[in-house]
Amino acid sequence: MTARSLGGREVAQRLRTAAADAVASCVTAGTVPRLAIVLATRDESAASYVRTLSAAAARLGIECDVSNLPPDATAPDIGAVLAALSADPAVHAVVLQAPVPAGLALTELAAVIAPAKDVDGASPASLGRLVAGLPAFAPATAQAVLELLDYHGVELQGRRAVVVGRSVVVGKPVAQLLLAKNATVTICHSRTPDLSSITRSADVLVVAVGRAGLITAEHVRPGAVVVDVGTNVAAGGSFVGDVNAAPVAEVAGALSPVPGGVGPVTTAQLLFNVATAAATPFQFSG
Amino acid sequence: MTARSLGGREVAQRLRTAAADAVASCVTAGTVPRLAIVLATRDESAASYVRTLSAAAARLGIECDVSNLPPDATAPDIGAVLAALSADPAVHAVVLQAPVPAGLALTELAAVIAPAKDVDGASPASLGRLVAGLPAFAPATAQAVLELLDYHGVELQGRRAVVVGRSVVVGKPVAQLLLAKNATVTICHSRTPDLSSITRSADVLVVAVGRAGLITAEHVRPGAVVVDVGTNVAAGGSFVGDVNAAPVAEVAGALSPVPGGVGPVTTAQLLFNVATAAATPFQFSG
Repeated sequence: MTARSLGGREVAQRLRTAAADAVASCVTAGTVPRLAIVLATRDESAASYVRTLSAAAARLGIECDVSNLPPDATAPDIGAVLAALSADPAVHAVVLQAPVPAGLALTELAAVIAPAKDVDGASPASLGRLVAGLPAFAPATAQAVLELLDYHGVELQGRRAVVVGRSVVVGKPVAQLLLAKNATVTICHSRTPDLSSITRSADVLVVAVGRAGLITAEHVRPGAVVVDVGTNVAAGGSFVGDVNAAPVAEVAGALSPVPGGVGPVTTAQLLFNVATAAATPFQFSG
Repeated sequence: MTARSLGGREVAQRLRTAAADAVASCVTAGTVPRLAIVLATRDESAASYVRTLSAAAARLGIECDVSNLPPDATAPDIGAVLAALSADPAVHAVVLQAPVPAGLALTELAAVIAPAKDVDGASPASLGRLVAGLPAFAPATAQAVLELLDYHGVELQGRRAVVVGRSVVVGKPVAQLLLAKNATVTICHSRTPDLSSITRSADVLVVAVGRAGLITAEHVRPGAVVVDVGTNVAAGGSFVGDVNAAPVAEVAGALSPVPGGVGPVTTAQLLFNVATAAATPFQFSG
């Protein structure tokens, strides 16, 4: 058996088309959607990602401003910039790019971004609204997992979903999104003993740990759907996932590839969120 | 076999003693802790609970003000009262009592309560901070479950915990608190097929559904720890839990009683949170 490939490129294209439609209606109404990105790091891969995102935004007609802060910026420095952007009516979306300066917590810094502009679901209020089922942007990576599953027709209601990883940007919000789809959800992590006994109970297995090849064939129930959120740099500079793809593809019913799975959907989802924030901002009280 | 009883009265007493110590240090420093409760319902059981809470607060030296709003109060009405209380430096803690007027969402209304005063962990920001591991008050009932387990020496790290119920006041925050203790956590709910097959995998089973007798002996692995958060009114007006206690006690290793388990801990936890908010308010940025 070879697993069906849950490719992300068509999903990303669908999101870009929807984003372009939203941008067009904004422009017709006299508004150009504007994304503000705050960067307080000299990390080269972060800078590279921001350049990619800016270029993708430009192709969709979204203006993109990058505020560069020094890598030793303080919490008040970053907070003041984010608060000013969040309060600016010409800015529809605000993203604080990871990593943030040592000793600071991205979620805490992001607290000053209004939920309606928090397109990467980074603030405590956005996370809490997600948990409570109120309108909110989920972190783009977490939402991308759901979009990938939806596009490929994977049913979630009544299914057993297992999430490996409990980060605040992927594992925890993915668990909330799966729960909202009426899956029964288990969250595993580095302190979970006998991981494979739990992952083998999954109809849908989402892996977001950041350890190349962590998940092997023995972790997967025959026929299960596996979504690999990991992007790890392998020898030679190529990207590999958290799933050991070749043996898992012999067991799983479906598997998302790395690269070409969740990754492209994430970028498209973030830009779709920017267009949505500009076109149909939701109302919220705090 | 008869399960050990995880009684809550001693746990509550310990919390009240700690709260009284915190109140005493506030008073020594010239401050009387003050809790503001907002009530926008004519529900008699809510009014009765508020009277109980006020009396318990008074015994600890906590001032308690109740703002009564009509049961048809609007979101702006309630928001204005909560915002004014949250901004008042003489008020250390603000609680919006459930139920709220029809059509309104308690979590959304609570968004204007500052996290440092949100002693029942009701706002989106408090929930999100809990998810992110930042300082925050958890909903008192959810925290009470953890205090009960801690008092009775139940180890959580590396254990399998199953939470039945996904409410924003108990199920979801309990799951986050168990996860923070390094349990592997599964959340089940009304759409979970074959519930007993999942609950039987639990070392620690927390039930918070609000359906009398839902959990029977067949749902429980021999020797498991069972915490019953349900309080349902039985025939004759007595309270019963979500767990069918007599048969489950023959299977479980430990079981919290109803009444006398989570209930008394919850009230004490809430007042402990008020004293903490007054004595050592945490810093936060939004």
